Amino acid sequence: MSDVAHLYGRNPVREALKAGRRKVHRIWATEAATGEQWLRDSGVPITVATGDELERRAMSGAHQGVYAEVDPYPYSGASELLAAENPLIVVLDQVQDPQNLGAIARSAECAGATGLVIARHRSAEVTASAAKASAGAVEHLRIARVRNVADFLIEGREAGCWSYGAAGDGRPYTDVDFSGGVLLVMGAEGEGLRPRVREHCDEIVAIPNRGHVDSLNVSAAAAVLLYAIPR
Amino acid sequence: MSDVAHLYGRNPVREALKAGRRKVHRIWATEAATGEQWLRDSGVPITVATGDELERRAMSGAHQGVYAEVDPYPYSGASELLAAENPLIVVLDQVQDPQNLGAIARSAECAGATGLVIARHRSAEVTASAAKASAGAVEHLRIARVRNVADFLIEGREAGCWSYGAAGDGRPYTDVDFSGGVLLVMGAEGEGLRPRVREHCDEIVAIPNRGHVDSLNVSAAAAVLLYAIPR
Repeated sequence: MSDVAHLYGRNPVREALKAGRRKVHRIWATEAATGEQWLRDSGVPITVATGDELERRAMSGAHQGVYAEVDPYPYSGASELLAAENPLIVVLDQVQDPQNLGAIARSAECAGATGLVIARHRSAEVTASAAKASAGAVEHLRIARVRNVADFLIEGREAGCWSYGAAGDGRPYTDVDFSGGVLLVMGAEGEGLRPRVREHCDEIVAIPNRGHVDSLNVSAAAAVLLYAIPR
Repeated sequence: MSDVAHLYGRNPVREALKAGRRKVHRIWATEAATGEQWLRDSGVPITVATGDELERRAMSGAHQGVYAEVDPYPYSGASELLAAENPLIVVLDQVQDPQNLGAIARSAECAGATGLVIARHRSAEVTASAAKASAGAVEHLRIARVRNVADFLIEGREAGCWSYGAAGDGRPYTDVDFSGGVLLVMGAEGEGLRPRVREHCDEIVAIPNRGHVDSLNVSAAAAVLLYAIPR
């Protein structure tokens, strides 16, 4: 693991500066981007660079003229999330696409969730591309990594939370009372929840499918369920 | 405009075959993919190809071993969508990212929407990448193109529909009565609704933002609103 992480894109860098949870060491920006007030106000050393150089550094064409070296992502502790009063925590069981992780983090942050829990292995991490897909929401939302998702659900139950796994064969979410502390468990795109994780959910909830295709995308499903849970 | 369109990915090709709304002329598949029953049952001539060849044809690495030549996308007429009883129609005002168009089409199809309306100009079209992002939902959902979005809202009102534009400063969607025919109008990522389109909406609805980042992604917002509208 390296001591320095990277971000690219305007929202990711701007939200990292705003949230102040990790240090932004140095910024590279195109001539055009350096004109932006928030960048000049950042107090961070800025190096002017060409778009090509940013693309090489970001390994992506989606840098929007801004690239930064930052501290590694400051993961939270899972127990710290559970310590909140009636927390709403999204738990991702092996979601592997950083785009989906980022999209879910953005929706969770907007919906006022307490945080997000991801598995330490075989899951997307909070990389620069996940940060970009989240529009910088990962800088504000607390995200924790756990060794074992099923064990975390047990820990959650001991903390007074109820866990709801999303699957097509569950009870319609509109019939479910989501009061109290909630762990919303979403499975991997395509595969769904793993059996051991599913077994440890207190309830399985479904979003009614009135169409022909298999199911909602995992990030769309997360958004629908997050906003169905009263805060 | 060409007479032949393309699809890549398993869901897009499979759903095109299932829906039967456009002819699948010829399929290229990797040796591994040709073993799949739905492909062998399709009755369409299949040519075995390498992954590299599929990637060249698809101009994408996301082909999943399947590529097809198909008829152009069969757009529906906008008036035909309005003719449904109490239709639920998603109207996209210049959403330019095919990923977002595809994701919204998938959610709309799952939510049982009547169809989707997009502007003829300066909007993402139903390309192979939009079809891929929709997991093939575009083959089932009716999608119409209109010259002018504001004019379509007027036509919708004459047909008895109420139009709801999504914007951060609107009335909380949970306070809104969505009964009857609904046009759900979503603006472009970043820009939101254009003034003339917004003026022609009967009501502006908002998804409460309890976080720090600007707003939900347009496809997450569409999913939340689609499922909030009783069907």
